[in-house]
Amino acid sequence: MAKNKKQNKPFRPKARRPRGFEDRAAETLRAEARLIEAAFSVYDIHGFEPLQTPAFEFADALGKFLPDDDRPNTGVFALQDDDEQWMSLRYDLTAPLARFVAENYDALAKPYRRYQAGSVFRNEKPGPGRFREFTQCDADSVGAAGAAADAEMIMLAAEVMRAAGLKDGQYAIRVNNRKLLDGILESSGVPNTAEGAEQRLQVLRAIDKLDRLGAEGVEALLGDGREDESGDYTDGAKLNAAGIKAVLGFTTASTDNRADTIRTLEGLMGTSERGLDGVKELVQIDSILNAVGFGNDRVAYDTSIVRGLGYYTGPVFEAELLTDIRDRKGRPVRIGSVGGGGRYDDLVSRFRGQAVPATGFSFGVSRFLTALERMDALESSVKPPVVICAFDKALMGEYFKMAGELHREGIRAEVFVGAGNVTKQMKYADRRNAQVAVLMGSDEMAAGEVTLKDLYEGAKAAAAIESNEEWKSSRPAQETVARGTWVAAVKAMLADGTETNA
Amino acid sequence: MAKNKKQNKPFRPKARRPRGFEDRAAETLRAEARLIEAAFSVYDIHGFEPLQTPAFEFADALGKFLPDDDRPNTGVFALQDDDEQWMSLRYDLTAPLARFVAENYDALAKPYRRYQAGSVFRNEKPGPGRFREFTQCDADSVGAAGAAADAEMIMLAAEVMRAAGLKDGQYAIRVNNRKLLDGILESSGVPNTAEGAEQRLQVLRAIDKLDRLGAEGVEALLGDGREDESGDYTDGAKLNAAGIKAVLGFTTASTDNRADTIRTLEGLMGTSERGLDGVKELVQIDSILNAVGFGNDRVAYDTSIVRGLGYYTGPVFEAELLTDIRDRKGRPVRIGSVGGGGRYDDLVSRFRGQAVPATGFSFGVSRFLTALERMDALESSVKPPVVICAFDKALMGEYFKMAGELHREGIRAEVFVGAGNVTKQMKYADRRNAQVAVLMGSDEMAAGEVTLKDLYEGAKAAAAIESNEEWKSSRPAQETVARGTWVAAVKAMLADGTETNA
Repeated sequence: MAKNKKQNKPFRPKARRPRGFEDRAAETLRAEARLIEAAFSVYDIHGFEPLQTPAFEFADALGKFLPDDDRPNTGVFALQDDDEQWMSLRYDLTAPLARFVAENYDALAKPYRRYQAGSVFRNEKPGPGRFREFTQCDADSVGAAGAAADAEMIMLAAEVMRAAGLKDGQYAIRVNNRKLLDGILESSGVPNTAEGAEQRLQVLRAIDKLDRLGAEGVEALLGDGREDESGDYTDGAKLNAAGIKAVLGFTTASTDNRADTIRTLEGLMGTSERGLDGVKELVQIDSILNAVGFGNDRVAYDTSIVRGLGYYTGPVFEAELLTDIRDRKGRPVRIGSVGGGGRYDDLVSRFRGQAVPATGFSFGVSRFLTALERMDALESSVKPPVVICAFDKALMGEYFKMAGELHREGIRAEVFVGAGNVTKQMKYADRRNAQVAVLMGSDEMAAGEVTLKDLYEGAKAAAAIESNEEWKSSRPAQETVARGTWVAAVKAMLADGTETNA
Repeated sequence: MAKNKKQNKPFRPKARRPRGFEDRAAETLRAEARLIEAAFSVYDIHGFEPLQTPAFEFADALGKFLPDDDRPNTGVFALQDDDEQWMSLRYDLTAPLARFVAENYDALAKPYRRYQAGSVFRNEKPGPGRFREFTQCDADSVGAAGAAADAEMIMLAAEVMRAAGLKDGQYAIRVNNRKLLDGILESSGVPNTAEGAEQRLQVLRAIDKLDRLGAEGVEALLGDGREDESGDYTDGAKLNAAGIKAVLGFTTASTDNRADTIRTLEGLMGTSERGLDGVKELVQIDSILNAVGFGNDRVAYDTSIVRGLGYYTGPVFEAELLTDIRDRKGRPVRIGSVGGGGRYDDLVSRFRGQAVPATGFSFGVSRFLTALERMDALESSVKPPVVICAFDKALMGEYFKMAGELHREGIRAEVFVGAGNVTKQMKYADRRNAQVAVLMGSDEMAAGEVTLKDLYEGAKAAAAIESNEEWKSSRPAQETVARGTWVAAVKAMLADGTETNA
C-alpha cells in the first residue's frame, strides 16, 4: 500500500470491498432472518439448544492443518496469534462443534443436540454466487449411535422445509447410506478397511458427477480414468467391469417408494455385513417415518445421493427442491440441494480417541433463499415506511409526535430528517417506495388538518397522463383530513394500497 | 506446533479455544436474540433498514492502517490476501458503514438509515469479560446534518431501553455536545482548528477519567500532567488555571432538568460561536423531546459525558442503567454505560473528500445483557423440553409420534435418542432440567396408557425424605393416564410445575 507522498493532501482510501465479500441489503436480510428463525423454532420445539462458537479456532483443531506446511493450507483464512499459534476462521459449523463437544464432553448431557447459524469463511476463488463469507444453519445430535437419531435429523430437515413456507411436494429429503456402497464395494473386492479408503472416496467422487457427466463419464471414472474436453486426465477408481456394473446398478436401484427400495437393496447387498447393516438402518428409519406419518413424498430413499464429504459414516441425506425453477429469462434452473447432512462418527473422536457418534443437518442459507425467491415462495416483506415530510422546521417536534402516533398502531413511519425542500422530500419518499407521504405546514397545523398523499395512486395517475389514456382513480391521490382522525385515514389508505409496477 | 513423530499414533489435536474467544450457551444466546430482536423492531418501525457488511474490510478502508508499519497495527486482526492487500476483520460496525455509504453514495436515498448487529473483533489482550470477538448492535443515520437526526437517535436509544424490558426510571440517555467543550476551550485559548485537535483530545481523555481519578486527578491532567501510584507520568493538556477552572466548571454545570441546563450553558459559552451553536442544537433536540413526551427521566443533559472516540463532532450520548446493581456477593456494581453514540460528520468524508453528516447509536450486547441479568430484568427463557423415554426400541416410531403430538400444541418435547436404560434416561431428563418425563412400555402401549413423571415434584419428595421432614405434595410425582388424554395431562402437569431450587 503506497504511502501518500503529498503531505498536504490527506490520504483518501478507496471505498471498496475485498473480492468475494458482499454487502447484503434489507430484503435479503429480512428473508434470511425469517428463514433462520423458522428453522430455529423447529429445532427449539424438538428440544435442541442454541450454541455459538467463536469465528476463530486453532488451525489444528479445525482439522485442515497440514503438519508439513509452513502455513495452514489454502481454503481457510488463517493468521498467527501473538504466541505464534495458527488460528483459522471456521469454514463450517461442524468442525467447531466437534471441538466444543470434545472440550466439554463430561459436562454435557448426552445426546447433546444443538443448533447454530452463522458466517463461515472459505479462502477460495470467488465467483458469481460464490462468496468467501456466507451463512450456514446447522443442527446436530452428538452421542447417539442409533438410527433413531438419524431419523430425527431427517424429520427435522423436512420440518424446516415446511417452516420455510414450502408445501409438501415442493421438496424431498433424499436419504442414502454410506454403508450400502461400502457393501457393494466389499462384494467387488474393495476391502472395507483403511486401505480401501482412498478408493472408496474416488468412487464417491465419481458417483457425485452423475448429473454432470452421465453414466458413461462416471463409468470411465469408476474404471481406468477419463480425459475431459480440455485434455485433463482424471485417474479412475480402477474397479473391474463387474464392480463398475455393481456400483452403477446400485446408484439406480432406488424408486420413489421406500419399502420397494428396501426390498431391492436387501437383494443387492448379498452377504456383506456392512451393506446389510446399512439396510437395517434404513428399515429402522423407515419405521419411524411411517409411524409419525412422513410419507414417500416428503422423505425418499435415493441411492444416487453421495454428499461429497469423506467424513460421513452412515446415513446421508439431502434436501432438494422439486418445483420447476426458472431463471429470470424463463429457462429451467437446477438448484440442486439446499442442504444436507448425515452421520459422522469419527469427527469428535479425532480429539478424544474414543468413538463419539454424531449426526447432523446443515443448510446453506443463501442458496436456500435464492431457491425460495425463484419459486416465489418468499414471504412478503416489511412494508415501506410512511414518510412524514418536514415542511416547516419549527414543527419538527410535532412531526416526531405524529410518527409516534403511527408507531403505536404498528405502522412503520419516519420523519424526513435530511436537508431539502418538499420536492426533494417527495423524491426521497418515492425512492423509499413509500405509499403514503404526510404533509403539514404551520397553516394546516393551526387549522388542525393534515394532508396525506398516496404516492402509488399518484404514480398511476401520472402514468395515465403520460400514456394519454383516460384514467379513473377509485380514490384520490391526495386528501386533507382532520388531525383528530388522521391515523385512521392513513390506515385506510394503506389498506387500499397496491403498488404500481410502473 | 510440534509435528507428531510417532507415525503409528494418529495426530490428536487438543480441543481448546484460542484465548479471548468464547463458546456461548443457550441461555445467553436466547437472551441476546431477544434483545437484538427488540432493538431491531424499534429500528424497523422507525423506518430504518437492515444492512450486513462482511467481516473483512481492506485495512486502509477501516482506517487503522499505519502507513509506516510493515503490518497493520495491533488492535485489529489482519491478514494479507493472495494479491498482497491487507484485509482486517472489522473492529466496529461504524467504519464498515462509512465504507459502504461512500461506495454506494449515489444509489442510496438519503438520509440513509440502517441498523446492523454482528460480531466485531479486537486483537487485544483478553481479560475477564473482555473478549476478542463480541456482538455490537448499531443504528445510524447518514446524510442528515440537523439536530433532528440526533434527536431521533436519542429517542431510538431510549425506546430500545424500553423494548429491552426496562422501566422508565431504570435507565437514562445522557446527552452532551462536543461543541460546548470546544467553545469553553476556545474561550480558554485553545484554537478551534486542526492545531488544537491534539490538545482537545487530551482534555477529553482527562474528563473521561473523572469517575476514576476524581476532580483533583483530572485537574492535574488538564494542567501540566500527573504521576500515578506506579510512577508512570501522563503528560497534561497544559491548560492555564483559568482554562482548568472553566473546563471543570463546565463538566459539573448540568442538572437533572434539561431547560435549566440549557440556560446555564448559554451563560457559560460567552461569545464562542461554536459553543453557542452547540447550545442551539441542544435547544432543538430538547424541543423535539418535549413535543414527543420524552421527559427528563428518560433523556438528561449531562456535561460530564465524553465518549472517548475522537471522531465525534457534535451531540454525543450514552445509555446508562440507573438501578442499584449488585454483584453476586451483594456489593454495588457500576455497570456504566451499555451503549452510546453521537454525531460523526467526518467518517464518510474521509473517503469522498466532501462533507457527509452522520449520527448513530451503538450498544454492546453482552454488556447490556450482563446488566439486565444483574437487574433481574431478563425475560424468562424457553422452557426445558418434555423428555419421552425410549423404554422399548421397537416403539421408537410411536415415541416420535407422541413428541409430534406435543409439538402441535406448542410444547417443547424430545425423544431420548441416545443409548442407556431408563435410569440413565431419567438422569438425562434431570440434566436437561426437564419437568416431565414420559414412560410407555409395550404393556402400557397395549393397554392404551402412558405414565407421566413430574421430576420437579419428585425432587421435592426426595428432598423431604432426605431432610426427614413430613412432606405433603399437592399433586403426585407420577400418574398413569389414558393415551387419548395424555397431551392434556402433560399440559396440566406443566401448568402446575414450579422448579425446585434444590
